[in-house]
Amino acid sequence: MNAMDDDPQMDELVKKLLKRNKRAIAKAITLVENHPEECELFIRKIYPHTGKALVVGTTGPPGSGKSTLVNNLALEFRRKGKTVGIIAVDPSSPFSGGALLGDRIRMDELSSDPDVFIRSMGSRGNLGGLSRATMDAIRVLDAAGFDLVLVETVGAGQSEVEIVRTAHTTIVIGIPGTGDAVQAIKAGILEIADIYVVNKSDRPGADEIARELRLLLTLDPHAKDEDRWHVPVISTTNLPPIDGISKLADTILEHQTFLNDPKNAGLALKQEMTRRKNEIHEIIKVEIFENMLTSLIGKQEWEKILQDVITKKTDPYSAARSIMDPLFR
Amino acid sequence: MNAMDDDPQMDELVKKLLKRNKRAIAKAITLVENHPEECELFIRKIYPHTGKALVVGTTGPPGSGKSTLVNNLALEFRRKGKTVGIIAVDPSSPFSGGALLGDRIRMDELSSDPDVFIRSMGSRGNLGGLSRATMDAIRVLDAAGFDLVLVETVGAGQSEVEIVRTAHTTIVIGIPGTGDAVQAIKAGILEIADIYVVNKSDRPGADEIARELRLLLTLDPHAKDEDRWHVPVISTTNLPPIDGISKLADTILEHQTFLNDPKNAGLALKQEMTRRKNEIHEIIKVEIFENMLTSLIGKQEWEKILQDVITKKTDPYSAARSIMDPLFR
Repeated sequence: MNAMDDDPQMDELVKKLLKRNKRAIAKAITLVENHPEECELFIRKIYPHTGKALVVGTTGPPGSGKSTLVNNLALEFRRKGKTVGIIAVDPSSPFSGGALLGDRIRMDELSSDPDVFIRSMGSRGNLGGLSRATMDAIRVLDAAGFDLVLVETVGAGQSEVEIVRTAHTTIVIGIPGTGDAVQAIKAGILEIADIYVVNKSDRPGADEIARELRLLLTLDPHAKDEDRWHVPVISTTNLPPIDGISKLADTILEHQTFLNDPKNAGLALKQEMTRRKNEIHEIIKVEIFENMLTSLIGKQEWEKILQDVITKKTDPYSAARSIMDPLFR
Repeated sequence: MNAMDDDPQMDELVKKLLKRNKRAIAKAITLVENHPEECELFIRKIYPHTGKALVVGTTGPPGSGKSTLVNNLALEFRRKGKTVGIIAVDPSSPFSGGALLGDRIRMDELSSDPDVFIRSMGSRGNLGGLSRATMDAIRVLDAAGFDLVLVETVGAGQSEVEIVRTAHTTIVIGIPGTGDAVQAIKAGILEIADIYVVNKSDRPGADEIARELRLLLTLDPHAKDEDRWHVPVISTTNLPPIDGISKLADTILEHQTFLNDPKNAGLALKQEMTRRKNEIHEIIKVEIFENMLTSLIGKQEWEKILQDVITKKTDPYSAARSIMDPLFR
């Protein structure tokens, strides 16, 4: 333990967090979101208490009923006796901590439950830092002892993909009426889904899109491998009688059983190794870059180089090389 | 000029590209997409010929009729006598160069036009490299002398935002029926749009969403500044009689006039400086990272560190520090 690790206030926060104190949880997430330096020490302290929660990522386009679906899923897991943390990530929103993503149903039915914690996270203009902060926020909820952490995020862009890659199980949501199965490809289904959900399946065309998706999934060259997880397509509705949610919850647990099955040669561990490797990569990339660049080049030199690029005296690649040159000599 | 710059085959390609030879354009884009090393030299060669094209980025969720809108916009600019290059970027698609994103109308009406070039680009699993490749593909079309380069991309995630940030004018598309104006915020309107389009405005609710958007846009604290571009909301349809496209084309040109207006104190130049700075940053980040990391740590050492992280002997931050330590000593 370093000398700087000795921070009684932080130790107090960790202690309360481990007891699942809601104020401590909120404070801890604010810390990982807004205070990168303290965050590092804080994560060091809570890291040994993590790794127990099942992390479920959910992604889908705006308007796909994602938040309501995640609410219903949380209620379903509560009925099964599980404690649930929810992180609603919105890379395009400058808002954090508020209730923009939390609709009224969520607030009413879930917020008052002592075994549920809900938090929304926005980008505050810092897209790169969002996946980093989200990963650490998941850790906060994990350390607080929630059985499940549900992460929802909009769309299927790079930061969303990064965010859902931190999950053990990834759900991709689509809805009928926004196009056909080709749109599903566009939404990234083939790449990142462990479970595909056709939400709002009370709408016309739902059976058709589910059928098309199943067909598409059989086109995967590995579709017939026995030792492989076959992405199921589950139809759900957000309207009463809420349909399919129970099946979805069961399928999530089945996916976990599959990953942890000794027959599958430590798939869960292998995935965990990849996740941690990517994470360490990311930390190093940001750190090296920030430390190096500021030491390599001053503001005036920057101005000069940019001028040269704009006036076509040089090009961006050559400019980058000239800045980096001192490093590789 | 370096000795390695002397590559007669590449010089031939550049020569043909500058004459807007379609095969040369296709070959050049494949080069920037798949051959990072040659790409650098190639961009050095064509860079002096770039900077003339007006680059228009278009983004919106799957199912918003983006491709058809971009087609119609291309046809409209052709009617105005402009040459048009189109790049359809799909970060979630593993396909490149093909016609997945090019629907039949596009193929029929545009592909045979000698003054139009269309290319789709997928991620091939390399999300980070996609915005890099897209930027260079835009340069290829720019050097080939197209008056306009239209870039379309799905969604509003990080890589899409990066891609549209390379554009001079950014169009964000929404459609009625997928939610209200809050969804528009989620789609990133406040952050990246220069022009907001409500497409499929023949659908019910179109006027309502346009009205809500205009209201939202007035909430921007700078909404009343006179020297600021005020994001217009334009309603369009993809069905005949195609509506609003002509207005959209005019608005794009107005936005350019605005950016280049001497009254606006070199806004266009300022934005260009920022774009180039971000680009050089990116090149350095990737380069430093790849060069450093491989020299810093061997495969066996990696295994050991990952094991320690998994078994909680250490945490990801401390692991990253231990790898970086030799650099900062």
